[in-house]
Amino acid sequence: MPYVNIKITREGLTAVQKEQLIQGATELLVDVLGKNPEITVVVIDEINTDNWGIAGESVTKRRQRDE
Amino acid sequence: MPYVNIKITREGLTAVQKEQLIQGATELLVDVLGKNPEITVVVIDEINTDNWGIAGESVTKRRQRDE
Amino acid sequence: MPYVNIKITREGLTAVQKEQLIQGATELLVDVLGKNPEITVVVIDEINTDNWGIAGESVTKRRQRDE
Amino acid sequence: MPYVNIKITREGLTAVQKEQLIQGATELLVDVLGKNPEITVVVIDEINTDNWGIAGESVTKRRQRDE
Amino acid sequence: MPYVNIKITREGLTAVQKEQLIQGATELLVDVLGKNPEITVVVIDEINTDNWGIAGESVTKRRQRDE
Amino acid sequence: MPYVNIKITREGLTAVQKEQLIQGATELLVDVLGKNPEITVVVIDEINTDNWGIAGESVTKRRQRDE
Repeated sequence: MPYVNIKITREGLTAVQKEQLIQGATELLVDVLGKNPEITVVVIDEINTDNWGIAGESVTKRRQRDE
Repeated sequence: MPYVNIKITREGLTAVQKEQLIQGATELLVDVLGKNPEITVVVIDEINTDNWGIAGESVTKRRQRDE
Repeated sequence: MPYVNIKITREGLTAVQKEQLIQGATELLVDVLGKNPEITVVVIDEINTDNWGIAGESVTKRRQRDE
Repeated sequence: MPYVNIKITREGLTAVQKEQLIQGATELLVDVLGKNPEITVVVIDEINTDNWGIAGESVTKRRQRDE
Repeated sequence: MPYVNIKITREGLTAVQKEQLIQGATELLVDVLGKNPEITVVVIDEINTDNWGIAGESVTKRRQRDE
Repeated sequence: MPYVNIKITREGLTAVQKEQLIQGATELLVDVLGKNPEITVVVIDEINTDNWGIAGESVTKRRQRDE
């Protein structure tokens, strides 16, 4: 009866990649814990790079500086 | 002092339905626990069907297959 | 396909009250949105009053002051 | 190794304000707990006023009534 | 720069299983999206069966009934 | 109308430090966005080091290895 929430920066994630994340996370819970996949929920949140901070600055700013 | 987060798939939820969810969740906390509605917060997250997985596949894919 | 997370301060919530919250939140989603209860998940988080802040102070401190 | 999630209503938050929130939250964790800023993550969620409820009604409705 | 939150019912999850969930979720993000594992965070929340509801009742009650 | 959730590893956080986090996060929202502190909520989650992963391993394991 697991619930998995994946948060990543919004950067052109494709529908195929989303399916891979959902399938992979579900299999992980089945393999490690023997959970029932039928009631395993995965929710993917895509976050704008302006809204994601690491080391005190946004990912947007961090990338501009690194270019 | 409760906080309620409701996550549902994004499928044309109307403003009226959102009011009903907010009002109903607040009343539930008041009725069951005697919480003060003035500081009861409800946040509704609408999730794209591509980003919601159940039983190892996205809701988008599940619905296409069921048609 | 909803997921509901209820966060409240940890204050002797009984098993019966938890059942009422789970049942009430599930019925709310069924009534307002016609969601399938079989795949409606409710998770209740009980938070110590030291760890819950409102108006810039913990609930613990707020209550001590109000006594 | 902290993770901070800030949820606010979506109301024209600027990129500069987002940087201030990310920087301020990171500094708070460094100052109070001596956390390593390099692995401190801040995620800002902007929520439509229709989707945020307080005192049993949406922020949208509350504001219309207060005008 | 991903953050993964896994919520499961609290049922004797071992330290080894937790390592497997952390490693598996991190590898999933690396494999599917090429994310940097160094800043990939995984948080596991173990939830009491009284506090987890599915189909309108707690997991505790569901299991008692199924026995 | 903000909600702030701070997740950190559980390592002897004191009541004073919790007050400082609550007060600091509330002031941040007031200073940057002019939010009303009266309805600003802060929730602190303390996570066991076994349950927090970074770079593919738990904080528990990472620390044992670094000693």
